[in-house]
Amino acid sequence: MTGYRHPFPLRWNDNDQYGHMNNAVYYEAMDTAVNTWMVHRAGLEVSGPVIGVARASSCEFLASASFPERLEVDVAVARLGRTSITWDLAVLREGAPDRGEPVALGTFTHVFVGRDDRRPVPVPEAIRSAVVEHLEVLATA
Amino acid sequence: MTGYRHPFPLRWNDNDQYGHMNNAVYYEAMDTAVNTWMVHRAGLEVSGPVIGVARASSCEFLASASFPERLEVDVAVARLGRTSITWDLAVLREGAPDRGEPVALGTFTHVFVGRDDRRPVPVPEAIRSAVVEHLEVLATA
Amino acid sequence: MTGYRHPFPLRWNDNDQYGHMNNAVYYEAMDTAVNTWMVHRAGLEVSGPVIGVARASSCEFLASASFPERLEVDVAVARLGRTSITWDLAVLREGAPDRGEPVALGTFTHVFVGRDDRRPVPVPEAIRSAVVEHLEVLATA
Amino acid sequence: MTGYRHPFPLRWNDNDQYGHMNNAVYYEAMDTAVNTWMVHRAGLEVSGPVIGVARASSCEFLASASFPERLEVDVAVARLGRTSITWDLAVLREGAPDRGEPVALGTFTHVFVGRDDRRPVPVPEAIRSAVVEHLEVLATA
Repeated sequence: MTGYRHPFPLRWNDNDQYGHMNNAVYYEAMDTAVNTWMVHRAGLEVSGPVIGVARASSCEFLASASFPERLEVDVAVARLGRTSITWDLAVLREGAPDRGEPVALGTFTHVFVGRDDRRPVPVPEAIRSAVVEHLEVLATA
Repeated sequence: MTGYRHPFPLRWNDNDQYGHMNNAVYYEAMDTAVNTWMVHRAGLEVSGPVIGVARASSCEFLASASFPERLEVDVAVARLGRTSITWDLAVLREGAPDRGEPVALGTFTHVFVGRDDRRPVPVPEAIRSAVVEHLEVLATA
Repeated sequence: MTGYRHPFPLRWNDNDQYGHMNNAVYYEAMDTAVNTWMVHRAGLEVSGPVIGVARASSCEFLASASFPERLEVDVAVARLGRTSITWDLAVLREGAPDRGEPVALGTFTHVFVGRDDRRPVPVPEAIRSAVVEHLEVLATA
Repeated sequence: MTGYRHPFPLRWNDNDQYGHMNNAVYYEAMDTAVNTWMVHRAGLEVSGPVIGVARASSCEFLASASFPERLEVDVAVARLGRTSITWDLAVLREGAPDRGEPVALGTFTHVFVGRDDRRPVPVPEAIRSAVVEHLEVLATA
């Protein structure tokens, strides 16, 4: 089985004035899910010499959610490139069986760079192989 | 047994430039733990006519924590007043057996007010009785 | 002259572990700029019967920024629809003369809905006319 | 004349479900004001060998504020210690003439430590002398 689901419980202050999870928090959810996966499943060291920085992101908000709900982020890969990964992400209600009724759908492109010079480097081999082995990959460049 | 422990997984963006959980996030943790308890265990309706607003808070930071750690907030009551509750809170590492080695210790005073006029009202009876029944209370006024 | 520039000074905790403004904060900047413009220049009442909710957003991150920098958000309109507005946004360094060297480029689609039933309604006339009069509009549907 | 006032415009997402600035954001305001002062007026380098980390903080919330208000933080020093500074802070409405009607009053204790070993070191001389010269100091240890 492939895939990764990251639990994302909402916080009191995630709700904005309109009483629902603020749109920027969806990006916190997606970034947190991807980074947790990279740290725990693919050996990323956040203090290491290669880091992944955001190059682009997007989100469609399809339903609303609000504290104290607990959400989940489903992690797949839209495109595994030479120096970048574009993640394909779905924000789901806790326990939702599949991606059938997402709260939101998003993408996140990380470019891997040297920590000091911030120049692109190949996707670290440990991350590339963990992606191929454990996640659904829609396209490889 | 009395007490409530609220799980609080850190997010990528909780770490600040110095590589650890930013100090303001401790207050998000404490507020989230207390509000979740009030909603799920004591019948608080966040859209209801009586709401709890922050009157004061404080925190001592005793150790550092950082994403991707999972923390927990232990909830007790320092003072159960007529119109207010002062919470006694400990931020702990996941699974820490007791309050022996807290990451942080804090307080939070909520005053209960009418949603519309924001004037103090007695602590709702459902919350008062849930506090007395389920949490450790250090003082009652 | 058309256009609106919203000042957006960074906060200490906007910098993430990699020492630069976290990607989610760009969305806070764009949303804040658009809502401030709607409130101050187009009569939006955030407690009124019609509110604008996020339907989609996107951002390309072209350069990095970090606290204590002061940024600005340039607000234009990509598409003025019947019930929605898609904003065309540029995050700039303070005082940058035009959109020549943006830190980031983004979009934000707000759908206007009834506060209570959350069903789409026409863009309020005050907002529509303020957009046409004061902002650059790339397309109208 | 002594003193420093830091402008702090609110963001859309600073308002929580109850329609006012969330309590944790006051700590973001105070920390941002103090760090901006230290960087711009006292030569703190956030990438340097000595950093200031939060040891304790507190806040009394005396009035409510909400986006799109612009606030200000007035910075003074409650205690200038050997390795720490306890700041005395007032959150004010923009243009408030003095500390007469604060929105909130708070404290923040920074301990200065080595970036790598995180052990306390004396307050850097540049910061100590800038404090003495430019800010009101209530006590010196």
